[in-house]
This record gives sequence, structure tokens and C-alpha cells, in this order.
Amino acid sequence: MTVTLPGPTLGVVGGGQLGRMLAEAAAPLGVEVIVLDPTPRCPASVVARDQIVGEFDDRDAIDELATVSDVLTYEIELADPDVLESVAAKHDIPVNPDPKTLRTIQDKLVQKEALADAGIPVPEFIGIGGEKDLKLVVEELDGVMLKAREGGYDGRGNTPVHEPSEAAAALDELGVDTMAESFVPFEREVSVIGVKGADGVATYPVTETIHADEILRASVSPARSDDAALDRARDVATEVLDFLDGWGAYGIELFETKKGEILVNEIAPRPHNSGHWTIEGSRTSQFENHVRAVLGWPLGPTELREPTVSANILGDVDEPAEATLYNVDRVLDASNAHLHWYGKTQVRPLRKMGHVTVTDPAAGEGDAVDDALVERAESLRDELTFVDVTADQSRSASQQ
Amino acid sequence: MTVTLPGPTLGVVGGGQLGRMLAEAAAPLGVEVIVLDPTPRCPASVVARDQIVGEFDDRDAIDELATVSDVLTYEIELADPDVLESVAAKHDIPVNPDPKTLRTIQDKLVQKEALADAGIPVPEFIGIGGEKDLKLVVEELDGVMLKAREGGYDGRGNTPVHEPSEAAAALDELGVDTMAESFVPFEREVSVIGVKGADGVATYPVTETIHADEILRASVSPARSDDAALDRARDVATEVLDFLDGWGAYGIELFETKKGEILVNEIAPRPHNSGHWTIEGSRTSQFENHVRAVLGWPLGPTELREPTVSANILGDVDEPAEATLYNVDRVLDASNAHLHWYGKTQVRPLRKMGHVTVTDPAAGEGDAVDDALVERAESLRDELTFVDVTADQSRSASQQ
Repeated sequence: MTVTLPGPTLGVVGGGQLGRMLAEAAAPLGVEVIVLDPTPRCPASVVARDQIVGEFDDRDAIDELATVSDVLTYEIELADPDVLESVAAKHDIPVNPDPKTLRTIQDKLVQKEALADAGIPVPEFIGIGGEKDLKLVVEELDGVMLKAREGGYDGRGNTPVHEPSEAAAALDELGVDTMAESFVPFEREVSVIGVKGADGVATYPVTETIHADEILRASVSPARSDDAALDRARDVATEVLDFLDGWGAYGIELFETKKGEILVNEIAPRPHNSGHWTIEGSRTSQFENHVRAVLGWPLGPTELREPTVSANILGDVDEPAEATLYNVDRVLDASNAHLHWYGKTQVRPLRKMGHVTVTDPAAGEGDAVDDALVERAESLRDELTFVDVTADQSRSASQQ
Repeated sequence: MTVTLPGPTLGVVGGGQLGRMLAEAAAPLGVEVIVLDPTPRCPASVVARDQIVGEFDDRDAIDELATVSDVLTYEIELADPDVLESVAAKHDIPVNPDPKTLRTIQDKLVQKEALADAGIPVPEFIGIGGEKDLKLVVEELDGVMLKAREGGYDGRGNTPVHEPSEAAAALDELGVDTMAESFVPFEREVSVIGVKGADGVATYPVTETIHADEILRASVSPARSDDAALDRARDVATEVLDFLDGWGAYGIELFETKKGEILVNEIAPRPHNSGHWTIEGSRTSQFENHVRAVLGWPLGPTELREPTVSANILGDVDEPAEATLYNVDRVLDASNAHLHWYGKTQVRPLRKMGHVTVTDPAAGEGDAVDDALVERAESLRDELTFVDVTADQSRSASQQ
């Protein structure tokens, strides 16, 4: 493909932190970004050329976005594949990844069925018709993870059901359209950022993902798995990429089972939280490669630069409040630590507000992650807080 | 210093490529940028939160900038130190680097006098009163570089005078306020990006700067000098930082003479073209460190990550034209090559339009630059052109 600059204008449905980091990566490439997001002054709007304020599935707003864009993409699964497809067709511009892929991925049951049909290894799963159905499955599989088929994220939309007696409450919580998956006795959860472009696919080194309450807390790259498991994970990710339609970066979440199997947990048709480490830790960030891929440009190299750990900065508050993050100087003062703030004005319990990435300059490309690097990233992140430390200190001082 | 996020809003006088890369670096730190520039939709405006359209010395526009900013800085020497000083005082906000420093640096004669007074090594120099004066100096020093005292950049404002008979024409070209410098028989030109912050100073590894027609073409880091010259260059840069007032990143251009001396050529009170390599090649970019410094935040580490070469993409046209850069896919296809486009819509002869950075992943922190890396960066850059290659190809095809 012949590429000239200035590059095309990229219209992005969604203007959260993923859109923000996409815009940060697009600028050096000569690609200007316009985001569509319902929240005025959304995180991405500060670095994007413009924002159109509108819902993710608002046809008029997406039509407006298409009018000022040369290519469309999305950074959120709540985008509407039908609207994207028809608006892109009307304006005769590409939308990547293909809305067909978004449609398949949006419904977790359809996603799993399609993966299984393609021969890709997944946990046991089944669609749930109602309470009676769920009770039987719970009994047979000795407990399941019940998942809403659509709309869940960051642990919302997933609930474990250990006993038949818990079935009714779980269905009340998640609604009628659910599926159940067997619990996977995993050694660790891992993830591969895969990119599909005009000239083929590329995968990043395997990342170990550390969750708590089903929310990602830290990403460790490369994963502390043995070589066979790492190879297998990249192989499975490549199979997934072959199966998917349309260009872009994908987050491919995997289980590494205690037996050394790799099973696909979930796929995100966009850059993924578990790939934020690539900004400093790899040769080309997932965001730059998403931009390259959706434009049909050549992909950049995905090699590791150095062992890297990213830790999420989550809202450590009980109630929503105006966001002020304290102790930021601790991160700025630390060597080889990189701060990423998402620009959200309100902090909410466990909301993703930013991340910290730490690289290990003493190690090289082929090296494993030292456990101390993981501890360092997590302890740096743990020093950050949205709870007013100044008030705390004066309170404890006055109590003495 | 205690740092909280969201960070302060940074007002930047000037919205060219330096402002653009400042804004790219500021966003992850939670610092929003507003630029002031006379050109609507200036390069930085795309990634900055906002642009105020106005001249660099327009008091009302700078007053407006100060109204919406918490801290002021500038990315261009054409900023007016008196206006900055009085507007900052009126709004009771800091401006960094100190306008006093800008005032000293703006006038090349005053700059050299101040450096010499501080005991910092500089080439022989003298202020020029008129033609008679210049003729004498040319005779005595066996030729000089005549420099306009203010406003020169990229070779404009400098002209060599080898013979007394050339004096009148040179003064006609540069105007009345000039100075002369002896020609320095240098081994190479080098540069050090220095940063002065609240807690002290830091210097980046020494960069070798390759010029043609007094315009920077490529930057090689670390410079291919011997260790003694590298040490001496960093020492001189540190002396310069100690002498300067106010926080920020500085470009310190040096001559390495054939005798191994280091002399200061010129200082820029802002991030500098010879420091663009730091984005990929060092632990913290000069742009991030400028942001940190002007806010009084702790500086980030300035170590080399890998040997790195940057090559400037200049306008290879005879006349101004709408800019279209061809063959960009060659750079995107190359491994370890990074593209930086400045977003200028018009190309002009030798105008700086972007740069390409190439790193050497096979080498480590302590390693020297392999000459092949320099050739690779320059040949990749040379493939890029603003001359329509499609038209050329069809023309040569039709001639066959």
C-alpha cells in the first residue's frame, strides 16, 4: 500500500482512555482523530482534534462523525454494528474492525459458539434459558460463572454461581439473556494483544494478567509461564486472529490451565487494558498498531523492548467524588516509572483512572520478569490514592 | 513537592512542532496544554486542548492565555520577555524558563557576553558597529561568521564572511544589529539537552549534530566522540545550566574542536531539534522533562535506552506548495523506525516537516552508535519526498 501524509482523519466511536491513548499515538503518524462520546469533554477530547457529543449508537451523531472522517473505528463494544455498517456504506468509507466481528463478539454466547465452531479451545459453556436450566447446569458442572450475554465489563455482568440455590438471585442480577461457563482451574490468566492488518497478523509477547474481583489490577510482560505455554498462547491467539474479520488490534484474554492448556476466555475488538504496557515496553504500542491496522497501513514490530509491568490506578473511594489523585510525586520521582492519567474528572469505586508502567532496564529483550519488578509496580501504584492524605495527616496529627 | 492530579493547565506561547510534541508528552501526565500561535490550526492545536490565535508578542492574547493557564512557558524565542513577565505577574502565575533568560538568549551578543563573563568557553566574538568595523574583524580573524543579533533560525540570520570585500553585502542581508564570531575548526558539532528543575539539573547523553547549510539534518546519540570529549561536553552543559535562570529544557549547541575543546555555540531556552531522539531513545523525552521542569515537578531519568539516530524530513521543493509526503510506507515498513509528522499543511524549501527516528535494538545502554545506524536513518529519510513520485513515474514511463 502507498501511504502519503497528511494521513486520513480517523473517526473513533468512544472517547474514554482507549480513545485518548489512540489519539496520543495517532498524532506522530500524521493521523488526526475525532471522537464520538456522550460525555462532553470526555478523556480523549483533550488530545483529539474534535469531539462530537452523542451516544455510541446515535445514528445522526455517527453520520456526523462519518462526514468528517476518512475511516471509522471504535474503542468500545457498546458501538452499534448495524448503525456503523449502514453509515459507513452510505459514506463509502471503511469501518474497522468489521462490524460483523463486533456483532459476534458483543454477544458472549455467540462469540463462544463461533470460537468453538472454528476449533478454537474454549471452556465448557452453555446458553441459559431460565432458572431451572441454570440449576441443572450448576449441578452438572459443579458451579459455573454466569455471564450476561451483552454489555458486561470490569466484572459487571459476571457472577459466580456455586449452588443451585443461588440461581434465582444470580438471574435477577444479570437479567434474562445469560450464558454459563464452567470454572476453569487455571494456573494463571494471560492475554495476547493481536493485530490484524492488510498484510497479515502480528502478536505481542504474552502478558500475565492479575485480577481481583474480576477487574484487571496488573499486567506482567512477558508472562511468568514456561516456554511451552507461552508458545501455545501465541498460537491460539493467532488462530483467533485468523478467525476474526476486519483489521485492528484485539485483546485476547486466555486461561492457562493447571494442565498447561490454553483456553480463550474473552475477546475485545479493540486495544485492551492488558496491552497498555506496550507503550513503553514494546517496539510499537498497541494503539499505534491499531491506528496502522484500521487504516490498512503496514503494522509495526511487536517485539518486547524490556520486561514491563503495568498497574492500574483504580478509584479507592466508597462514593463517587471529584477526582484528586495524591502522592503523584512518588511515581514521578521513581526511576523507569511512567505515569498515564486518563483525564476523568470524577472518581468512582474501582473506576479505572490511570496506570503506572515500570520497565526493567537491567534486563534485555529475551529476559523474564523479575518478581521484584511486579512488586515495585504494585507498590508504586499503591502509594497513589484518591483519599485526601493531607486531611488524613492533619487528622492523625491532631489526634496525637 | 507534592504533586496531585489532574495537573495544572500549561499555557504555551508558540504552537509549532515543539508545542505539538510538548502536548503529546503532557497528556499522559495529566497536564492539559493550551497554545498561542498566529496560525489558525497550527501544528500543536490538533493535540492541545485549545489554541488562542494571536501573535507571539500580542499582550492581549498572552493575557487571555494566562487567564486560562496555571503556568506559562514558550517554545519559540520570538516570545516577548517583557510581556511574559508583566502578564505572569498580573495573574500571579509562574513563567518558565525565567523571561530574564529568554532576554539574555534572544540577543546573541548579550548571550555570548554573559556566557563569557560566567567563564564558559565560547568562540571568539565581537559586536559589529558597521562595515568598516566588520572589514577589520574579517581581516584580523581571517574570516568570520556574521550573525544577526536577534531573530535568526535554521541558518537564516547567519552568513559567512571570508573577505573584507564581502562585508557590505553581508551587512545588507542581516541588517544593522550584528555580531561576528571566529570560524571554529571543529571536529564535529554536538549538542546536549539540559534540564533545570526545582531539585537540580540533569543532562542527556551528548548528541552529534549533522548540519548542511546550517540546518540540522540528523542527530546521532551518543555522539561518536571519545569519552574525554563526551565528559567535557556534559560538564560544559552543566556549567551552562548552572548559569541559566529558570526551569525548563534547554538545547545547548556545542563545537567539539579539533584540539578536543568544547565551546558553546548557541543556547535555546526550550526543547530542541537535536533532542527529538529522546522520545524513543531515552528514559524520559525532552518534552516530558520540559513539562515536568516548568511545573516544578521532579525530573525523569535522562539515560539512553539504546543508540538512536533521528533524521529531519525537510521540504525538498523549490516553491511553497500544499504538503503531500510520499513513500511513507517505506518508513512504516522498516523495523525500529518511528515517524513524527508535524502537521504542517504547507511545504516550503527546507522547512522542517517531520522526523524519522531509528533505534538499534541489538545494542544496549552503554554502546556506541554503529555507522550503519546513521546510514539507515538517513537513507530511510531520503526515501521520503514532497515531490509527486506518482507523476514522476508516469512521466518516465511515458518517455520510454
